Amino acid sequence: MIYVDYASTTPTSEDVLKSYNQLLNRYYANSESLHSLGVEVYQTMEKSRQQTASLLKVKPNEVIFTSGASEANSMAIKGICFQYQSKGKHIITSRIEHSSVLNAFMQLEEVFGFEVTYIDVDEHGIVNMDQLRNSLRNDTILCSIMYVNNEVGAIQPIDEIKKLIRKYPNCFLHVDCVQALGKLPIDLQDIDLATMSAHKIYGLKGSGILVKKQHISLVPLINGGQQEMGLRGGTANACTHIMFAKTLRLALEQQVSRYQYVKKLNNFLREELSKIDGVVLNSSSEASPFILSFSCLRLPSEVHMNALNDKGILVSAQSTCGSKSHAYSYVLQAMGIKNERLHGVIRLSLSHLNTMDEMRTIVEVVKENVKKYGI
Amino acid sequence: MIYVDYASTTPTSEDVLKSYNQLLNRYYANSESLHSLGVEVYQTMEKSRQQTASLLKVKPNEVIFTSGASEANSMAIKGICFQYQSKGKHIITSRIEHSSVLNAFMQLEEVFGFEVTYIDVDEHGIVNMDQLRNSLRNDTILCSIMYVNNEVGAIQPIDEIKKLIRKYPNCFLHVDCVQALGKLPIDLQDIDLATMSAHKIYGLKGSGILVKKQHISLVPLINGGQQEMGLRGGTANACTHIMFAKTLRLALEQQVSRYQYVKKLNNFLREELSKIDGVVLNSSSEASPFILSFSCLRLPSEVHMNALNDKGILVSAQSTCGSKSHAYSYVLQAMGIKNERLHGVIRLSLSHLNTMDEMRTIVEVVKENVKKYGI
Repeated sequence: MIYVDYASTTPTSEDVLKSYNQLLNRYYANSESLHSLGVEVYQTMEKSRQQTASLLKVKPNEVIFTSGASEANSMAIKGICFQYQSKGKHIITSRIEHSSVLNAFMQLEEVFGFEVTYIDVDEHGIVNMDQLRNSLRNDTILCSIMYVNNEVGAIQPIDEIKKLIRKYPNCFLHVDCVQALGKLPIDLQDIDLATMSAHKIYGLKGSGILVKKQHISLVPLINGGQQEMGLRGGTANACTHIMFAKTLRLALEQQVSRYQYVKKLNNFLREELSKIDGVVLNSSSEASPFILSFSCLRLPSEVHMNALNDKGILVSAQSTCGSKSHAYSYVLQAMGIKNERLHGVIRLSLSHLNTMDEMRTIVEVVKENVKKYGI
Repeated sequence: MIYVDYASTTPTSEDVLKSYNQLLNRYYANSESLHSLGVEVYQTMEKSRQQTASLLKVKPNEVIFTSGASEANSMAIKGICFQYQSKGKHIITSRIEHSSVLNAFMQLEEVFGFEVTYIDVDEHGIVNMDQLRNSLRNDTILCSIMYVNNEVGAIQPIDEIKKLIRKYPNCFLHVDCVQALGKLPIDLQDIDLATMSAHKIYGLKGSGILVKKQHISLVPLINGGQQEMGLRGGTANACTHIMFAKTLRLALEQQVSRYQYVKKLNNFLREELSKIDGVVLNSSSEASPFILSFSCLRLPSEVHMNALNDKGILVSAQSTCGSKSHAYSYVLQAMGIKNERLHGVIRLSLSHLNTMDEMRTIVEVVKENVKKYGI
């Protein structure tokens, strides 16, 4: 089996799984219970929060454990909007955000009367900075732009965006860092809110964080008790939260070497795939090497995915969260991609766990498929 | 160690933990991926949904997996209010709900302009049905009443409440069933939305469901993709969701025998504790036998909890979610409990895992403590 769907999710590392199993047996108490068992769980969880904060160069009370990145995105976006709506109801995002961000913005527009500006992207999937500059107003309270796009790997000019947003003191900057974490360096300075997920970096599912700088208040998404500084109710999924720090540490320790390795795999794929007649790359050469989207003209995604699957090659087409929709990818459409290229998209998402031999096999199988199924 | 804090959380059953560990190794793919690994995860998760639905006598598409009961409560309450606010902005709950319910209502009141009626309770913690009857209006769109209170075990007259709410076709009934599940029979007919948690019935933390009848729409709380019928975004925590069905089946299979066993433990405690000078029971004899709240007059909760902890007896005072607040329990205050009784509250929450010997030890230690620390 050749698994190249790592942007959808990753297998949990053996190291994390082993520690997690040990914790599950031992740390069952409620972290808010005041008895000795509860206090032990609480202290261990807080140690994970401190380590996570230290790895990300933020303060411990700026790390909020959540059930995943989608929750963190909803919590950040709606939390800011409801908290600061008296300062303005204009918010900004891009057309290529993850569905958890885009749908939160659309809900704010349709249900809560916010005005949303959706920033266009160029043919490489990069947000139009002029349009962003012209869209910012004094009543703009939130700008949410992802770091790395999940379908094509486009890396957004976050540093430039930071500088721009800083000129608008009423406007907070939220960055969905899910596909950047453990892959690219992330500098959280001047980012007000950032979203991260464990299961994309060989951690557990049901585990994410929202980094929220301490000067910011939020209207809570999930109401409840005193947990997570009163911002996220519910009995802590303590063992999962405890594992976050280790998951993050393992990912960051090996970030540079993994990047360089995957870059080689990606370069090989780019070179070989673009030689195939009827194959067009959708990911720019500047994109994150962990994601490579290409289209086989005349070979529909679904047919191709099945053909790859029959050969043991596991891929996605567009975002996994919208995999069962028959609509074309809104990300690729926003990039101006049309017709056959939209119809024949395949996304390879890579890992340090992949090998060059696997890449060769993929290229060979794509060649065969294009020959066999290409109408 | 004598653990009598089962209303806070339960240890995960060995059976559940073993199956879970096996799943974690095998089912790492994203349940929405269309390749064979993803499809296998999806189908296994859907089987769990079907089994859960069948055990609860509802339809599979009425079971929404969540990260826990607090999320499910926020999802139900805010989801209904935002969806149906054009029909009215009056909502009803009781004064003794779990903080995840009460704080959602308060947020709707303070941030979103809803009008909330908080129904009083009597000295046993039972909602005032006359007041509820008189509070219902044609613009009432939601009534949320818990099945069993988490601090004193008061069982609410849900059947009577159902009949009442049915007369108001614009009003949905939400029932927080967390402390009832696996303990008392739950008939979901005429309940529109119900909340349940796995970790209170020897399942995993980070695992709950919202039962939402199919005639109801909700504005989603956590935005995202197609997961959970489009109502709850985020990569499914599939292995956890898969375990929900087994957790529920194990709890329901042994519900009657566990109830009878715990009832005996509770009867013993009630009888023996009430003999101690300066001890008053806060839980009515009609309450769920799984929860027994009592007060030691002249012995403050914190001092007593520590003294019990020193003897290896692990208890809570009031709700664990508010354990670190120095405020008195709002539940007991709503029951009209005052002064020393508020100050000296201890909550024992029982399980089939407890023994009669443990109960005897508890009674002896409470006697000693009252003698030793009672001022």
